Amino acid sequence: MKSKKQVNPPLGLALLFIFVILLGTIALKVPISTYHRISWLTAFFTTTSTITSTGLTVVDIPKTFTPFGLTIIAFLIQIGGVGIMTFATVIYLLIGKKLSIEQMMLIQEALNQNSFKGILKLARRLFFFSIFFEGFFGILLCIRFIPKLGWIKGICHGFFYAVSAFNNAGMTLTSDNLIGYAGDPVINVLISALFIIGGIGFVVINDIWDKKKWREFILHTKLMIISTVVINIIAIIIILSLEYGNPKTLGPLTHGEKFLAGYFQAVAPRSSGFNTVDTGDLRPATLFFIMILMFIGAGSISTGGGIKLSTFASLLVMITGYIRKKNEAVLMERTIHENQIFKAMTLSLLSIAIIFIAVFALLISETKLSFLQIAFETVSAFGTVGLSTGITSQLSSFGECVIALIMIFGKLGPLTLVLSLTGREKQKVRYPDGKIFIG
Amino acid sequence: MKSKKQVNPPLGLALLFIFVILLGTIALKVPISTYHRISWLTAFFTTTSTITSTGLTVVDIPKTFTPFGLTIIAFLIQIGGVGIMTFATVIYLLIGKKLSIEQMMLIQEALNQNSFKGILKLARRLFFFSIFFEGFFGILLCIRFIPKLGWIKGICHGFFYAVSAFNNAGMTLTSDNLIGYAGDPVINVLISALFIIGGIGFVVINDIWDKKKWREFILHTKLMIISTVVINIIAIIIILSLEYGNPKTLGPLTHGEKFLAGYFQAVAPRSSGFNTVDTGDLRPATLFFIMILMFIGAGSISTGGGIKLSTFASLLVMITGYIRKKNEAVLMERTIHENQIFKAMTLSLLSIAIIFIAVFALLISETKLSFLQIAFETVSAFGTVGLSTGITSQLSSFGECVIALIMIFGKLGPLTLVLSLTGREKQKVRYPDGKIFIG
Ligand SMILES: [K+]
Ligand SMILES: [K+]
Repeated sequence: MKSKKQVNPPLGLALLFIFVILLGTIALKVPISTYHRISWLTAFFTTTSTITSTGLTVVDIPKTFTPFGLTIIAFLIQIGGVGIMTFATVIYLLIGKKLSIEQMMLIQEALNQNSFKGILKLARRLFFFSIFFEGFFGILLCIRFIPKLGWIKGICHGFFYAVSAFNNAGMTLTSDNLIGYAGDPVINVLISALFIIGGIGFVVINDIWDKKKWREFILHTKLMIISTVVINIIAIIIILSLEYGNPKTLGPLTHGEKFLAGYFQAVAPRSSGFNTVDTGDLRPATLFFIMILMFIGAGSISTGGGIKLSTFASLLVMITGYIRKKNEAVLMERTIHENQIFKAMTLSLLSIAIIFIAVFALLISETKLSFLQIAFETVSAFGTVGLSTGITSQLSSFGECVIALIMIFGKLGPLTLVLSLTGREKQKVRYPDGKIFIG
Repeated sequence: MKSKKQVNPPLGLALLFIFVILLGTIALKVPISTYHRISWLTAFFTTTSTITSTGLTVVDIPKTFTPFGLTIIAFLIQIGGVGIMTFATVIYLLIGKKLSIEQMMLIQEALNQNSFKGILKLARRLFFFSIFFEGFFGILLCIRFIPKLGWIKGICHGFFYAVSAFNNAGMTLTSDNLIGYAGDPVINVLISALFIIGGIGFVVINDIWDKKKWREFILHTKLMIISTVVINIIAIIIILSLEYGNPKTLGPLTHGEKFLAGYFQAVAPRSSGFNTVDTGDLRPATLFFIMILMFIGAGSISTGGGIKLSTFASLLVMITGYIRKKNEAVLMERTIHENQIFKAMTLSLLSIAIIFIAVFALLISETKLSFLQIAFETVSAFGTVGLSTGITSQLSSFGECVIALIMIFGKLGPLTLVLSLTGREKQKVRYPDGKIFIG
């Protein structure tokens, strides 16, 4: 019998995730889910893309899946968004069961917490927030959709889009994503508000919900609010500058529409992956800039992906500190602990390494696609974003598997995944220092 | 009057470097240096490319520069290779002068040392090694070149190639680099031996020269020897696999020539930048792999560039350690100090950031070039490699300036450059810890 010390929460999470993907694959493969037969690979890819809230697709979703299939997709988006473990925990608590130590360790790992303290409350809150925001914005979206699409279709659209947006899935019920709504301010504002709230992270929402006053917020909340505002403003300026005169994207729009579409394309890449202009028509410089946004991603413990905005901000604080020869990373009169900085750097470098390996593999297998298309697709998968230059359906089977794997890496976090592969190792000897020249 | 505490060695080095570039630009611009007039920008770009031992060129070097101009180029390669500060120090010592504290601080910074101990000896040794290896291999190359090119041309070629190879400049006196020698084992072996010795780093050569026995070598020497062998074997296998059947590169060669050319293209990208096949004809996957090699680069305190092989190896040790949940980075029973790991991570992330900013700028300015061409050129400049898909002469003036700036960044090291911009700052308050969620 294995001792309790050998429980490996990252491995548990990874296995649970893969198990749910297999279930989802079967659910989407059954004939009542689709109008015409799809391959196992397509079912697997779609499930993975859905449950990781990525939204990359090899088939036309509304033309392929029946209302039954779409319901399964919405359900997968929902459990992927709040997290499988959170979902399971809340169900468990609702039916009155108690969690075992092992289950507590899993939910602790899933919520990126250092102790058991408050994690059940956080899980319940997280679930509540999902229902609350999806319900509230869903109703507002219905009010917009019903006059246009009729009662049944309007309500279905309203709630599907609310679920898809809050969970940063970026999936829509039209084949051209949100391009048809490029000039619709109500849709643009409602959808972007939803994915920004979902993407800023449950810890932040929780903190705001509880305290309501700026000076009482924890450092993480202040950092996330400020950096979300700053990065979005920078992104809006850069994307408007680059695309304002592009005849294929913002060029033909009115001034007001240009700003609306510029705003939307600037805030969407950090995980939601909706688009109101054709991504493949953006300039190469814009695509490259969007790749950086996709890599950075949304908030920690949110429905979004990427290395996370707080990780990126910590790196910036650390590097500026290093350049100014400070001994510690200081942010708003708080020291960011060395271990956190170390984790941020390891996570970033590991993420870059994983993306590079995937790009290298795809360059070998997808000889007809350009380097930019491949790099963009890979980073989009890693950041669980789902924007694409339009090549997803052209990928080889091998390419689809690579992208699916990267989506799983991106969703679970590279650290969780690699830590799941290894056991805890005890340091037995303290070795003397050895000098290595750096740089 | 400024106090001595305000001396900023990184700034001093950077200013000295820029001053020498200006001198070199003037020297290459004077009419006796060239057969036909070149622009100031071309003179500046060529000087920068030469003194940083990069070797990217916007003009055909042997057809543009007179023997006088080529002599200046060889001289610039030489002082760039051993380092301006080392060069100046040795001249100073030779004429019997004593170095001031400020000068000692400059040479300490230039040689990446933590104290004054032994640095003058190291500088002298470094100079001696250059003369020794260039002289010895120069004679061997002359023996090869004289029968082919006659006495005068043969001797000039022999020593120019020796200087160019030992200093990892990668410049040749033929317009097609070493493509004409693709099947010549003597040239391939002599040139590659020279740039591998020059690239492994003076600390390593010094250590081997003094101790001669493996078990007495310092950790850095062992690490560099092992990792040079390992990375070269991996590179040979990957490049042979990818290019073996490529009709534009290795395809038409005999089996023996294929291995020779595969070997050469595998060992050259980590800074020398010579090539025996046309770089622009390599497959995209090969170019991407070469980009990674160029980024990694050669040894610390060597004639090569990149983040340095020892930096890369430290990162690997650290990340594997992190994954295996060890508390420290251990290599060959020696602990790599936390500060070193921290420096390695900061350097890598800063390098990536600089490359990304340059690529973004070039994507905006060079609309006719592909993402792969631009990324390859930028990483080549950063690693002071000089391989190119053939686009250097197509760059806009703005693009040339960006690439020149990146070569300077790459040669001085991003850390030296950014540290030169800032003064030392004293930490006055110890702030309490603040929690930020990472990943
Ligand atoms: K998404
Ligand atoms: K070079």
